[in-house]
Amino acid sequence: MEEEKRKVREYIRHHQGEGARYLQRVVQEGSIRGHESRAQAIIIEKCRELGMKMDIWEIGGESLTNHPAFCSDRTDFKGNPNAVGILKGAGGGRSLILNGHIDVVPVGDVNSWQQDPFSGHIENGKLYGRGSTDMKGGTISLLLALEAIINSGITLKGDVFFQSVIEEESGGAGTLAAVLRGYTADGAIIPEPTNMKFFPKQQGSMWFRIKVKGKQAHGGTRYEGVSAIEKAEIILQEIRELESKRNKRITDPLFLSIPIPIPINIGKISSGSWPSSVPDLAIIEGRMGVAPDEMMEHAKQEMEQALHEISARDSWLKENPPVVEWFGARWLPGDLEVSHDLVKVLSDSYTEIKSTSPIIEASPWATDGGILNKVGGVPVVVFGPGVTKMAHDANEYIELKDVFETAEIIAISIMNWCGTE
Amino acid sequence: MEEEKRKVREYIRHHQGEGARYLQRVVQEGSIRGHESRAQAIIIEKCRELGMKMDIWEIGGESLTNHPAFCSDRTDFKGNPNAVGILKGAGGGRSLILNGHIDVVPVGDVNSWQQDPFSGHIENGKLYGRGSTDMKGGTISLLLALEAIINSGITLKGDVFFQSVIEEESGGAGTLAAVLRGYTADGAIIPEPTNMKFFPKQQGSMWFRIKVKGKQAHGGTRYEGVSAIEKAEIILQEIRELESKRNKRITDPLFLSIPIPIPINIGKISSGSWPSSVPDLAIIEGRMGVAPDEMMEHAKQEMEQALHEISARDSWLKENPPVVEWFGARWLPGDLEVSHDLVKVLSDSYTEIKSTSPIIEASPWATDGGILNKVGGVPVVVFGPGVTKMAHDANEYIELKDVFETAEIIAISIMNWCGTE
Repeated sequence: MEEEKRKVREYIRHHQGEGARYLQRVVQEGSIRGHESRAQAIIIEKCRELGMKMDIWEIGGESLTNHPAFCSDRTDFKGNPNAVGILKGAGGGRSLILNGHIDVVPVGDVNSWQQDPFSGHIENGKLYGRGSTDMKGGTISLLLALEAIINSGITLKGDVFFQSVIEEESGGAGTLAAVLRGYTADGAIIPEPTNMKFFPKQQGSMWFRIKVKGKQAHGGTRYEGVSAIEKAEIILQEIRELESKRNKRITDPLFLSIPIPIPINIGKISSGSWPSSVPDLAIIEGRMGVAPDEMMEHAKQEMEQALHEISARDSWLKENPPVVEWFGARWLPGDLEVSHDLVKVLSDSYTEIKSTSPIIEASPWATDGGILNKVGGVPVVVFGPGVTKMAHDANEYIELKDVFETAEIIAISIMNWCGTE
Repeated sequence: MEEEKRKVREYIRHHQGEGARYLQRVVQEGSIRGHESRAQAIIIEKCRELGMKMDIWEIGGESLTNHPAFCSDRTDFKGNPNAVGILKGAGGGRSLILNGHIDVVPVGDVNSWQQDPFSGHIENGKLYGRGSTDMKGGTISLLLALEAIINSGITLKGDVFFQSVIEEESGGAGTLAAVLRGYTADGAIIPEPTNMKFFPKQQGSMWFRIKVKGKQAHGGTRYEGVSAIEKAEIILQEIRELESKRNKRITDPLFLSIPIPIPINIGKISSGSWPSSVPDLAIIEGRMGVAPDEMMEHAKQEMEQALHEISARDSWLKENPPVVEWFGARWLPGDLEVSHDLVKVLSDSYTEIKSTSPIIEASPWATDGGILNKVGGVPVVVFGPGVTKMAHDANEYIELKDVFETAEIIAISIMNWCGTE
């Protein structure tokens, strides 16, 4: 096994140039939502080269769109398929899903970029472009790890399912479709940009909108009206108390150093249209963090209950109760015990390569890991190259050395997890 | 004198039909801002008919636009003149300004009107149309009173200046121009819609905008940012305390029944653009009420001082102090002692006509009376037909009987104030 590992690591080290050029090609095919097919084709080509059996399909259909975890503003995904490359094991080993999403977020203001957002330009060991960090760098780590194992002539015992999915950035319909197609496994690794930390637990989240009514009046006789802004302030205070109550319950040591493990963020407020009028409507929008071991429905109910309670204490709100909607995005949390063997396998590989222990934390955001974990029942660790801060920024880049180090760690982990003949 | 009064009142009663048709014509010439000339022409025609000496001029010039009380978003007012009709007295009496504005506010959503907004349609004693209440009905009361006096062959001792001004609704540049042209007097009546109450004092007001900074962060790690909404909440609380402090100082009995004599209204708040982000800017807009005897500058300074104090108590605001701008509209307050003889003269006339005492109050809004009073030094009472609620509403109308009753009260007041030969 040690000799095999040495060969695999050597292989990756000798193929960094090819790896970088390959990442460059995938980044250059900017795969924003609805335009994933060309980047996906490059991924599929590589899987075929490696002799993997391919399952390529357009997601959709009622079993997907009617599923409670489905979250998307569209129901037609034609032309941009999901792709799964299957590396069948010899038998007797644990199976593993390697999951990366091919979609990238929009480039934002093009003028904020120093070069073309899809240049794939390499300078000082950094590869630039939208999607380099989130998360094509991670996907290339996966493919490089598989290539090294296959081309080193190693036979794994367990099955490996390499997934390149669409729609992660907009709610996870791609990974959900893969789960519903039957792809589950004994474990999964998702190389999102964690700065090479391990996130066995991930904070879930969902968006809410609260509408608060007031009563219009002229500002000069504002006492004749009811300010929707003042009523919104009462609700904001109540939400902070709810946040505090929810966070006091979090005792998991992974959250020890995190000031607010599951924040309720108020992202937006808008009320009124005229300085001299008492505003009759306030709209609050925010993001509610969900604990790794919490049901989304439970979090919703707690928010609704809190609004109900505050309304009972305020005569205006009692007559005009605030209305909460759960709209737009929603990400399921992920939850794996730190003692799980997948964490140990990854951790040992990390220490072997980096000669130091990994940092194991809970992530402040969710990934498709939530769907794999909560819908598919798959133990998931999120671990990958690149830093979160870069992910949706202008001039996004990734340090290539992290991509290659991650490839080595994942390759060794695959061998240890699946076993080799 | 009693015989003269009887004749004048008789005249008005016998000319209600003509008065209504005249008001109809003036309303039909919808005189929204920048389109006052045709309605103004009808007013001028009537003044000429009555033999008044006319002063008609286009307002403007640096002495106007550089004046500290000037408040408008334009500096060119060509094509829509101010008009002053002068009725020279025989001498030895008190002079009087009768002021009405010819501009009307926009009609708003035309579909909310049951008839054409400028129909001038009369039904059940009500005359409909934009400007009927605010304030062409009042202006016609003034002209009818003057017509009755002149056509009854009465010679007044004091001078009367009938002013039909532009730009009241957008800051009072028309009346300011009249003051700067030299028109002041021993007293002034402005028949804005007070529902026939007397307002010797009027609440002034001005608009403010406060910008509050925050620090952006991802909602999942909101503790890494500073929420502009939370900082804005601190400021809203401080503004309520300032409002309370300012209102405790108001001891004038005219304000006794008013819950908040000079409110600070928060009309608008806007912050953030994304539910999952910590917002880095909040913008608050509002209207600050100003006491009748208060300098606008003093009110501004109090607001600025309050923001300064709150900033000293909050480390983030200390480094990132909120910035206040005084923008858009501004209305000077009006201030006349209830014991002033102009109030007595009007009050006696009211009692004579209505056989009951008038209601004397402080108004929750300002008029051009603030400019006449604070810039021109003229004692002003605001008193007229029509209810405030109607003023800027769809389907605005005025009760014609109130127009005629007001005309009688004003006619008798003119005679008592100016004296007759």
